[in-house]
Amino acid sequence: MNDVDLVLMGFGNVGRAFAGLLLEKRHILEKRYGLSLRLRAVFRSTGGIALKPSSLVDRLLTGETRPANKSSLWDPELRLEASLVRGARGVLVECAASDSRTGEPGLGHIRLALARGWNVVTADKEPLVACFRELRQTAARKGLALGFSAAAGAALPALDVGLGSLAGTEIEAVEGILNGTTNYILTRMGQGAGFDEALREAQAKGIAEPDPSRDIEGRDTAMKLLLIASSAMGLSLRLDDIEVEPLTGISSKALESARKEGLALKYLGSVRREKGRITGEVKIRAIPPSHPLFGVDGTNKGLTFLTDTMGAVTVTGGKSDPRGAAAALLKDIINIYRR
Amino acid sequence: MNDVDLVLMGFGNVGRAFAGLLLEKRHILEKRYGLSLRLRAVFRSTGGIALKPSSLVDRLLTGETRPANKSSLWDPELRLEASLVRGARGVLVECAASDSRTGEPGLGHIRLALARGWNVVTADKEPLVACFRELRQTAARKGLALGFSAAAGAALPALDVGLGSLAGTEIEAVEGILNGTTNYILTRMGQGAGFDEALREAQAKGIAEPDPSRDIEGRDTAMKLLLIASSAMGLSLRLDDIEVEPLTGISSKALESARKEGLALKYLGSVRREKGRITGEVKIRAIPPSHPLFGVDGTNKGLTFLTDTMGAVTVTGGKSDPRGAAAALLKDIINIYRR
Repeated sequence: MNDVDLVLMGFGNVGRAFAGLLLEKRHILEKRYGLSLRLRAVFRSTGGIALKPSSLVDRLLTGETRPANKSSLWDPELRLEASLVRGARGVLVECAASDSRTGEPGLGHIRLALARGWNVVTADKEPLVACFRELRQTAARKGLALGFSAAAGAALPALDVGLGSLAGTEIEAVEGILNGTTNYILTRMGQGAGFDEALREAQAKGIAEPDPSRDIEGRDTAMKLLLIASSAMGLSLRLDDIEVEPLTGISSKALESARKEGLALKYLGSVRREKGRITGEVKIRAIPPSHPLFGVDGTNKGLTFLTDTMGAVTVTGGKSDPRGAAAALLKDIINIYRR
Repeated sequence: MNDVDLVLMGFGNVGRAFAGLLLEKRHILEKRYGLSLRLRAVFRSTGGIALKPSSLVDRLLTGETRPANKSSLWDPELRLEASLVRGARGVLVECAASDSRTGEPGLGHIRLALARGWNVVTADKEPLVACFRELRQTAARKGLALGFSAAAGAALPALDVGLGSLAGTEIEAVEGILNGTTNYILTRMGQGAGFDEALREAQAKGIAEPDPSRDIEGRDTAMKLLLIASSAMGLSLRLDDIEVEPLTGISSKALESARKEGLALKYLGSVRREKGRITGEVKIRAIPPSHPLFGVDGTNKGLTFLTDTMGAVTVTGGKSDPRGAAAALLKDIINIYRR
């Protein structure tokens, strides 16, 4: 049995789903992968909690649903530094919500973990977008894993395919529907709803955030695209290199006239390598039924890789919810300790 | 640099494409993966050829296109036993065409390689279908890799996703269009061609074999399904457990009436786990536009996994040609020596 210590940073929807999944999957993890994952500490903005026997996770999750128990569990004095024991070679599970410009506080967490010799899996995109090269290089130099499936499409296996299944190919382009909220809005508009109506509906269903600007202005798509293209295509891209057209300009009329021509409008992020030149963009594009992403509707996502030797390879689906993101974090952890 | 010896068994379309890819990708393999792959010997039914300096591959490939040089290169006395040097820890690249009942001669090649401590990657399905459990267990016990992406969908990343990207999930079902020939026939029939016409067309284009029975009777789909479901779902399936309906029964009329209802007929292989019961079948099924495989046309393939935590995850595309299969062999080799 491989005993692995985990420290969970962030206890929002994804962090909670991850802790729940650890409980739910404990037996499978031991039996199928020989992996005993022991959650040692959990942090959120108001403090941390150190878990001595792992079974405390149960109490922690219950505590969250019973506000009365809440405050007694969280210690505002507990520091991440104290939990990332040097040489323990555990995994930091980073689920904080960081600033998109500075990448903080997640950037600091990840740097600290790598410095202490801990592997990292992260659902937090911003630290990676801010300092992708640095973090990847630090991890590689120290022989540590930096798993970011959950930040780059979550349950959509974008990175596994881009880095593993396409090993040995030249990836000439990636093209994807990478944001569930905007794809849902486009799908509903295609069914006759107006933009504002579709957005309100997405918010009411918990698909869109109360402040949906990151999604509908294309930044979320651009960030995921950056992570996927940088790693799978081996590029040194910055967010500024990606030309982003916000979705807000779209009209029901445009959708209708595309449909009449047998086309579908999709909010596509793409990076292409053509004659040595790299172009990146996030744009509303009309695609024909023969396009592999034509049928990707609702909150679904999809990504196509164009390669030299394997042709076009596409992945679609994968749950766009906290449980899907938590499952992607868990998958990255399992794959660190495999073989 | 990681120096790895290769022995190639089989020099048909896939074997030749693989040898060509080794030449084409030599620099990428060294630069990107630190991997120097040295082809030490090549075998086909009429004999073998031992390659001293690796550059002989060039002559070998040229020799194939110049019949005059052919016979002088192949030594009918050379044996696989002599090339699989014990302890060398190279890779046997198995591309023979084996018997579907006995799995021979490929089964013997793979057993010998594993016994000698060599890793194996194979495009030859039959030995795996015949003795899947035995070969997997032998490889695992000896800490050797048995890569069979090329046998289970080739450039379609079916196994990588099933085994790697879905780690930690429960796969409740797999459902796929796994044979390019029959999908091409269905697509052409949907465009108005008759069955015989579509089949002849596929044969003329080199998509279908001169004897297409393995494809149109569903055995090729069933074999790939068996390999994918057995490994990704952890099942002990035999080929007899899969109920196979041949494609030959299909009429243009059935396709037309499905289309009128907005459905598409696909030749689907599926394995489901329901209430502890496993069912496997290869059947013509009518699927709606919301199905992730609805748009998979022509020689394309596609596979959907239904999971507990990640929802439905689908892979589509990947070239259905010898180069795509060769690229899948190469990918498996790269991933053996990674990290």
